[in-house]
Parts: sequence; C-alpha cells; structure tokens
Amino acid sequence: MPLHPPAQPGMPLSAVDTPALIVDLDAFERNIRTMAGALVDKPVRLRPHAKTHKSPVIARKQMAAGAVGICCQKVSEAEIMAEGGIGDILVTNQVVGAAKLDRLAALAKHARIGVCVDHAGNVADLSRAAARIGAALDVYVEIDVGAGRCGVAPGAAAVELARAIEASPALRFAGLQAYQGGAQHIRAPEDRRAAVAAVVGAASETVAALEAAGLSCPAVTGAGTGTFPLEAASGLYTELQAGSYIFMDADYARNLDQTGKPVTQFEHALFVLATVMSAPVPDRAVTDAGLKSFSVDSGLPHPWDRPGVRYVSASDEHGTLAIEPGAGAPAHGEKLLLVPGHCDPTVNLHDWYVAIRDLHGPNATVEALWPVAARGAAF
Amino acid sequence: MPLHPPAQPGMPLSAVDTPALIVDLDAFERNIRTMAGALVDKPVRLRPHAKTHKSPVIARKQMAAGAVGICCQKVSEAEIMAEGGIGDILVTNQVVGAAKLDRLAALAKHARIGVCVDHAGNVADLSRAAARIGAALDVYVEIDVGAGRCGVAPGAAAVELARAIEASPALRFAGLQAYQGGAQHIRAPEDRRAAVAAVVGAASETVAALEAAGLSCPAVTGAGTGTFPLEAASGLYTELQAGSYIFMDADYARNLDQTGKPVTQFEHALFVLATVMSAPVPDRAVTDAGLKSFSVDSGLPHPWDRPGVRYVSASDEHGTLAIEPGAGAPAHGEKLLLVPGHCDPTVNLHDWYVAIRDLHGPNATVEALWPVAARGAAF
Repeated sequence: MPLHPPAQPGMPLSAVDTPALIVDLDAFERNIRTMAGALVDKPVRLRPHAKTHKSPVIARKQMAAGAVGICCQKVSEAEIMAEGGIGDILVTNQVVGAAKLDRLAALAKHARIGVCVDHAGNVADLSRAAARIGAALDVYVEIDVGAGRCGVAPGAAAVELARAIEASPALRFAGLQAYQGGAQHIRAPEDRRAAVAAVVGAASETVAALEAAGLSCPAVTGAGTGTFPLEAASGLYTELQAGSYIFMDADYARNLDQTGKPVTQFEHALFVLATVMSAPVPDRAVTDAGLKSFSVDSGLPHPWDRPGVRYVSASDEHGTLAIEPGAGAPAHGEKLLLVPGHCDPTVNLHDWYVAIRDLHGPNATVEALWPVAARGAAF
Repeated sequence: MPLHPPAQPGMPLSAVDTPALIVDLDAFERNIRTMAGALVDKPVRLRPHAKTHKSPVIARKQMAAGAVGICCQKVSEAEIMAEGGIGDILVTNQVVGAAKLDRLAALAKHARIGVCVDHAGNVADLSRAAARIGAALDVYVEIDVGAGRCGVAPGAAAVELARAIEASPALRFAGLQAYQGGAQHIRAPEDRRAAVAAVVGAASETVAALEAAGLSCPAVTGAGTGTFPLEAASGLYTELQAGSYIFMDADYARNLDQTGKPVTQFEHALFVLATVMSAPVPDRAVTDAGLKSFSVDSGLPHPWDRPGVRYVSASDEHGTLAIEPGAGAPAHGEKLLLVPGHCDPTVNLHDWYVAIRDLHGPNATVEALWPVAARGAAF
C-alpha cells in the first residue's frame, strides 16, 4: 500500500492528494439516521452489510444507531470486523474449504457468528469444524429466490438441509436467507414490488414447509437498499441486510420512485476526488482516477455538479472527461468530485476513507481518516 | 488487508486458500527470457512497466534479465519501487499538484527519476519543486500519437515544451514519450502495423522538428506488449515500456498473428485460484471470486483448461460458471484456475502473489509469496 496517506485531519479539501476516497460526513450521518427512522416502527431488525464499507469504524456507527449486528460476505471480512469490536456477525454466504471453516469456527469462540449453507456436505464440514474447537454456529439455509446464484430451491430441499443442521450438535438452525440481488436494481417501482412479492412468496412457502415438518424458523434475512421498504412491510422478514444506503452510488440513484423520478431517500455520500492532470484540447480533460480508483462494472463514474462534463473513458490510471461546448471546462490542476458507478467494489480499491465535514460548502475540511480495514479481504 | 495470507511456501497448490492470485513461475520465467531474447540484437532498451505487477521483487527480476530500469505510472508506485531497490524509474505520466511534485523531487535525490509533461505550467511547477530540494529530473515531452488522452500535439507544440524544459535549471530534456495504448489491443496484425506506423511517423516528425530547432532528442519511449516488435524495429524508439508480457491476460491473448491465430509468444502466467462454493443445479457452479478478485473492464475471466465451462457472471464476491451439457462439471469444493480478462487492475485487487512451481503438473507447490507492494498506490 502507499507509503503516505492522502490527507491529514484538519486539512482543507483542496489539500487532499488524489485520487482519494471521500466520505461526505454530513450526508453519511443523515443516511444512517434516515434508515433508523424508516425502520423505527417496523417489526424488523437492521443488520447492515459491511461488504459495502469494510470498516469497523463505520460498523460501530451503524450499531450505535440501532443495528443489531452486521453482515459480512467473507470469513476474512468477519475476522477484521470481530477484531474491530463487532460481536454479532452473519456471513451471508457459503464457507467452503478446510482452512476457512477452521477460521470461521475459531471466530465463533469470540463472537456470535452466523453462516449460510446450500449443501449437505458443507453442513457436515461446518459441524465437524465447530465441534472440534468447541464452538457453536448459527446456520441459515439459503434459498434461491430468483437470483440464479447460490441457494437450494425453496420448499422441500430447504427443509432437508434444516433437518441436517438441527441434527448437528455444534450447529443451530437459525432461519432462512432469501436475498435477490437483481431486484435491488430494477428501476420501476411496480417491477421491484412484483419481484419482491415473488421472493416473499417463495420464502413464505418455505417457512410453511419448515413448520409443517415441525421445524420453527427463527429468522428470515435478506433485502438490500433498493427494496428494503418492501421486505420490511412483508410481515415475513425479521432482518434486513441493506448496506449501500450509507453511501449510495450512481447505479442505485437510477432507481425510480412512484412519480417516475429517481429515489432520493438517501444521499450520495461517497466520492472519489480526482485531479485534472492534463487538458490538452478544449473539449477534453484527463483526470488521475481510472480503473484502479473506480470499479466500472455498473457504469462509469460521473462528475458531481458539473453540467456538460462527462467521464467518458477509464484506462488503468486515467479518466477522460468530455467537455461540451459552452460548459465550464475544468482547469489544469483542478480537483473534481466523481460519483462512483458502484460503491462496494470501488471502496475495495482504496486504503483510506477521507471523511470531510461540510463537503460541498466553503469550509470543507478533513475531519477523519478511516482505514478501509477489510480492503482485499476476499477469502 | 486480510489478517492471514492465502498460502505458505512449501504448501501444495491444493492447500492454497481462495481467491488467490497465482503466478505460474515457470511460464513467468520463460516470458522474461523470451522478451530478453526478442530484444537481444535490437538497438532498443527494455524499461518494463511496473504498473502491471506493482512488485519490487518482480522489477528486480526484470532488471537482472537486462532491463535498464522500470516505468511507473504514479509517484506512490515510484516511491515503493525506489524503496524496494530500483534506482532508475520513469514516471510515464504527468505529475500534477504540490504534494506530488514535492514527493517526486524528493525521490530524485535517491534515484534517477524521469517524468512526462504536456503543459508549460507543469514544467514550471516541476522546476520549482526540483530546484527547492536540489534535485535533478529527466523530463520527457509526451506527444499524443492517436490515443486521444494526454500529450501535446506532435511537432511545434512539443518543441515549445522541450525549450521550456531546457531553460529550467533543475530539469533536463530527456526525449519524447509516444505511446498509443489503443494500438496494443488491435487484433489483426496488419491493422496493428498500420497504427504503429502512424505513431512512428508522428514521433519522427517531432524528432525532426526538435533537431531543426537545435534540440537533440536523447530518447523516444513507448510501446507495449501488443506492438513492441514494431517499435523495436522502427529505428526510432530507444526504450520500450512493455509490461504485460510477464503475465499476459485473456484480452492480450485475443491479438492475432500473421496466420490469423492468437499470438503465442508469451504464455499465460497469471491466474486467480477460486473454489466452487455452491453447485446448486447441474448446469451452474458458483465460485468465490467475483468483482473484488477480478477487474472485468476487458471482459470476464475464463476457466483454464475446462472445456464447456464458462464464467458468465461476476457479482461482488461470486463468479457464476455455466456448464454445458456433457462437460465435466466442477465439483462442490473443487479449486479452479481462472485467467483474468485484464491483468493490471486485477493484480491491484490482491495483496499477495502466490508463486507456484510446476503449476499445471502433478506436484504444483507454493515456492514463494510476494507482496503486491504497490497495490493501491494510485496517487
């Protein structure tokens, strides 16, 4: 990693070195309050997904606002979150392979740990790893509710796995994971509603099948930033896994509300600050932030509040801006805020959050540097 | 970063935790020898681009095979390379902003440092930073030879900048950078040849204009893995910047030779090892390597030597494989090698190279772990 961080607390924004991952502290804090407010009278708990931010500092802020624990996607993320003081972690994923299973079981000696399964052999492996070390694990059966990725089919296959979990001394059947990632990014609200209704239907049938088999289902977990009000109102879900709400990104901002306008419940709070390092012709400027500063899988970033200036091409270390005639051209050396297309994998490219107070105001100042502590924690 | 590395020297490949960035040591060493052999009787020096690997260990191996120095794209990369023992570094990029200029000048007190410019104000800033600290910098004028990114126009504009450099006491005009990234990935050899001919023409005219103005041009630097034989044979280029040749990637392997077949001069030496963590239906398997283990900007990865198995979708932490009827389906828990679509930004996601001897043989063994020391060094 770099020998120098890009900023120091107390610096003005203009002195921050680039590219830098910027958090708008005011918007970020409002997003956390907005989510807490949206769930205050709902019969669901918030367990936000830490794969978005990979930071125990942020996880602790979420828990201070009422979250019951956090989600992680990988054992190595969970290790860093536990080391950072988080005592209740759900790994929303299958954990496969001897080394990882041993590490997961070891974590469960020091924190409450949940994990998902979709394979009977994996239940047996989990049970052996937990029993060997004397740990207890909460195990969720993941059902495929339309994502076409991991998970057993809803219904009988899920009941069979739940039975195998219940029969394993070191494991506790904790409930169902029913998450449909694709539904998060459906633009039209009626289409999102229909997608979530199908998810809730499949999960409800599975809960009924479990009950018919004499198994109670303590929890149903899932949902994301794009759909959580629907799962919260379902009467079925007990925990929500939304994570991106703290930052938002260009892709989530393309979801529409009932009036056909972009959803504005949460604010953009994550940016990459970039410098114009070349401005060779009037209609082009080149920034110092390319594929190693942004993940472009969900589209290119866009300049914040710069009408007529578009980010049109990313190479490894360069981002090219096209400047429309008459638009205010960024000057050579000027620093610009860019909104990432997809926040989670963009965060994973950076070592530091540079947290700014009054980001869009005249006195924008570095208030904190937070390590992206679980950056690269992919295994 | 993760609390545990994914492997230890001496382990069999099968024990490496996943996802892991794998180097086929035998192929990697052959690639280094092949490049040295290809240039042995050519009047050009090799200065390989370290933005590909971000590892002083690998840079020192390249220099042991005859490279005269290395290229970096960012000051923070150059800092890590200098700290890792590399004494001759060209930053093939514009360096803009007070903090970066001071750091670049400081480096030049301890290593030979070159840098590119395309802006008169930047020449003045460089000169001030170098003079303040008593350093001397080699400065190259970057000309835009068709990439439409950074660089002044060939000809008079380049002469003007070269004069400004020569007039600056702490700077030395070191030559021209003429690099066309787009030409590297042109598939048909005749089209690549035409593209490089245009590049060489523009650079030659600029060298002639410099000489007509009484300025000698000590060096012309550029080229990449896709085109370097053409620049090497041009009689104009003095240094080649190719970097990807050590690893290759799926995109470079799509370039064709004169016979219409993929170029095979260099071998795939970079992989990501992934585990099948879910195999819920016969025609689908899900690996643990997604967008946080691969950059997908140049296409998805492909499974190595697994006919009928395609990587069809990447989400943040999952990669979905489609299995054709009759193909050998990867088993639950099986580990697979995947070839990245684009090596440079994929390397930048990982903390460790796991270097394997006899990778495709029966005794594949971890021989070394090399840190991706400049991972995240983007500023």
